[in-house]
Amino acid sequence: MSQTPTFTLVGAGLGGALMAIYLGREGYPVDVFERRADPQSGRIDAGRSINLAISVRGIEALRGVGLAEDVLRRAVPMRGRMIHPMEGGLTFQPYGVRADQAINSISRAALNVTLIEAARALPNVRLHFDHKCTGINPETGQAQFLNTQTQQHVESRPGVVVGADGAFSAVRAALQRLDRFDFSQSYLAHGYKELCIPPNPDGSHRIEANALHIWPRKSFMMIALPNLEGSFTCTLFWAHEGANSAAEVRTDDEVRCFFERMFPDAVPLMPTLLEDFRCNPNPSLVTVRCAPWHHLGKVVLLGDAAHAVVPFYGQGANCAFEDCPVLLDCIRRHAPNMEAAFQEYTVRRKRNADALADLAIGNFLEMRDKTGSKMFRLKKRGEKALHKLLGSAYLPLYSMVSFSTIPYADAVDRARMQNRRLLLASAILAVGAALLATWVI
Amino acid sequence: MSQTPTFTLVGAGLGGALMAIYLGREGYPVDVFERRADPQSGRIDAGRSINLAISVRGIEALRGVGLAEDVLRRAVPMRGRMIHPMEGGLTFQPYGVRADQAINSISRAALNVTLIEAARALPNVRLHFDHKCTGINPETGQAQFLNTQTQQHVESRPGVVVGADGAFSAVRAALQRLDRFDFSQSYLAHGYKELCIPPNPDGSHRIEANALHIWPRKSFMMIALPNLEGSFTCTLFWAHEGANSAAEVRTDDEVRCFFERMFPDAVPLMPTLLEDFRCNPNPSLVTVRCAPWHHLGKVVLLGDAAHAVVPFYGQGANCAFEDCPVLLDCIRRHAPNMEAAFQEYTVRRKRNADALADLAIGNFLEMRDKTGSKMFRLKKRGEKALHKLLGSAYLPLYSMVSFSTIPYADAVDRARMQNRRLLLASAILAVGAALLATWVI
Repeated sequence: MSQTPTFTLVGAGLGGALMAIYLGREGYPVDVFERRADPQSGRIDAGRSINLAISVRGIEALRGVGLAEDVLRRAVPMRGRMIHPMEGGLTFQPYGVRADQAINSISRAALNVTLIEAARALPNVRLHFDHKCTGINPETGQAQFLNTQTQQHVESRPGVVVGADGAFSAVRAALQRLDRFDFSQSYLAHGYKELCIPPNPDGSHRIEANALHIWPRKSFMMIALPNLEGSFTCTLFWAHEGANSAAEVRTDDEVRCFFERMFPDAVPLMPTLLEDFRCNPNPSLVTVRCAPWHHLGKVVLLGDAAHAVVPFYGQGANCAFEDCPVLLDCIRRHAPNMEAAFQEYTVRRKRNADALADLAIGNFLEMRDKTGSKMFRLKKRGEKALHKLLGSAYLPLYSMVSFSTIPYADAVDRARMQNRRLLLASAILAVGAALLATWVI
Repeated sequence: MSQTPTFTLVGAGLGGALMAIYLGREGYPVDVFERRADPQSGRIDAGRSINLAISVRGIEALRGVGLAEDVLRRAVPMRGRMIHPMEGGLTFQPYGVRADQAINSISRAALNVTLIEAARALPNVRLHFDHKCTGINPETGQAQFLNTQTQQHVESRPGVVVGADGAFSAVRAALQRLDRFDFSQSYLAHGYKELCIPPNPDGSHRIEANALHIWPRKSFMMIALPNLEGSFTCTLFWAHEGANSAAEVRTDDEVRCFFERMFPDAVPLMPTLLEDFRCNPNPSLVTVRCAPWHHLGKVVLLGDAAHAVVPFYGQGANCAFEDCPVLLDCIRRHAPNMEAAFQEYTVRRKRNADALADLAIGNFLEMRDKTGSKMFRLKKRGEKALHKLLGSAYLPLYSMVSFSTIPYADAVDRARMQNRRLLLASAILAVGAALLATWVI
């Protein structure tokens, strides 16, 4: 019995559903409890969801359970950033150092349904929708739920609770009350508003499909990610308060005026702008860090519940996906000692999640401000040239994050090292040139 | 009515009780709800409480309601640190730059009772003990309580909720669930064990009464603070795990052996060491930061609920006390606009609480490690000499924190500036000396 504990997965979002598949394929009995309705029921949450950009890390994790091709078929590859300056005229900045490198735009809902159906197909995975987590017992590894359809309270079987219930995790909230649990939640001054560019009448994309479109405006920005059926999901990221903020731009007139001034080339593409603006909320953006990610061998956190990040590196879901094979690997190496497994999992993943959190905040500044500048484009070209010259001895940070599985923290360290070496090489070259000049004169 | 809202104070600890007095004297109707029993009932919590060191900031805040003399009468002045090296031999390091400067050791319970009785004496302050806060309504400014004696649920009158309910504040936990509330709780790797040095049979102190005794041992330390009745409250601060930690030293034999090796001069003074060690818990030490400290004009946080710090600068209670006159001042300036009042209060206090949090963590290293070194004593003497030479142009940081009401953040800035100037002056002197030497040669 102790060899095969029951896993109670709280949350059937991206990380939770993929972990259910990993654990289910490994033969563990898995109960998945999800607050929202079964997507099969038709009662679907109208999402406030930035489109996802799945890249190598996510693809590798999906490949581990044979789902990579399935998912990529539903995605639109984006090979670079298409910059929309205020004064008009587009510039394209490739993401990769190779032309075939792309990140893949997919709707969160489509991806989630693919995962849920793959989990449902496993005989030892049981899915329970409309179950809201109300608490956990960290000693027995059980979770309590309210069935929101029947109003009945149920408790999961003893075993292991996997908290995959997102940035506002109920499982983590229970751990937070235990002694010596470090926790922080930190909000950006910016929130976001989801908008839409519908397809052309013939179903084609109104602007370049294979790009992530950015309207960089220094203190704020709009982005647009392509959907397979010809539309784009747009997101305006802007401050909650101050100049050009959600607090300042509220009425239809203000919205129309703001968009015509700031995004003149986008307005004709957005016929439902005012309705979308009125109907959609203006959610906040939070970074969550905590430690430890587990309690004894009974509770473990995964994905946003352990490490919610802001969306600007397009790595939140990729990072949650990456957690899953690592957690399974740790369980394999240490089972039945779950405490040792979760300890190793935390050691392997926490520093990388911390590194990603910083990267994601840093990339906001880059996207909304720097992508618009000539200096930035020059720097990107320089990076690419250096990689061509030096090969794998020089990999741009963006490539390491989006097109490799080098752990995030190692990628950051390596980028720092590369820059130091570059600086040293430049200094040596400069001194050499000066000596040569002296000698020539 | 809107001119005189009812204040519901959650928590009658140090900050809560003092704030009740400030608000009560101002004429506001005040309801104070406290989880613990009325001290008059005799049902007293056996404390796990480090003795407090009240210094100028706390004294000034007490003086504002006429309680300074009352409190100081119950306290023992400590004029410096008495260092107990492992190899024996004591050294005394004065705290102040003047011989009469002292911080004042007082038991938390004695101080709290003084404040509670002063609050009780006010006709418009009502005290409700045995009431545990179960939630708040942040829109109406009401709090819900469970009367732990009768098991009845009660709700406070609408108005303003002041969360003065400590590091694990229920009021703050409710705010944490609102949008855009930044929060962090961060634990030290060290916990603490309270111990005791009883008085001599004649009631006198067994070691120097007017000092804070420190046994610095690099990775851990013991301290002892004098009580009026001849005893000392000792606190061993040590790691939860690793070498010389709570995890390693557990049995009577291990405890005896550890103390005889590490604190040989203290063991003969501690006849109840083994019993104390067995009976007392090994609590953790947490730093709490959050923002904003208020919600609309309905909820505001105070003391540890807003900014719990580790105890190593002896400033936690002083800082909570300092909150009270500032909060009242802000209310006076903006009433009946409580939102503006709480906003100003947050602006004035948060940066100082943040500065203190860092100072307190830094001072742990100083106390447990550096106070034992000759270099440190030399530095302290140098600081004193500089102050004598330069007067108010050079004030040691410790003096600014403990013997002035310069806001904490300003004190830190000023110390940084002083050090920069000192460095510059030394450089100029060195260059001057070199030039002089060249000229002489």
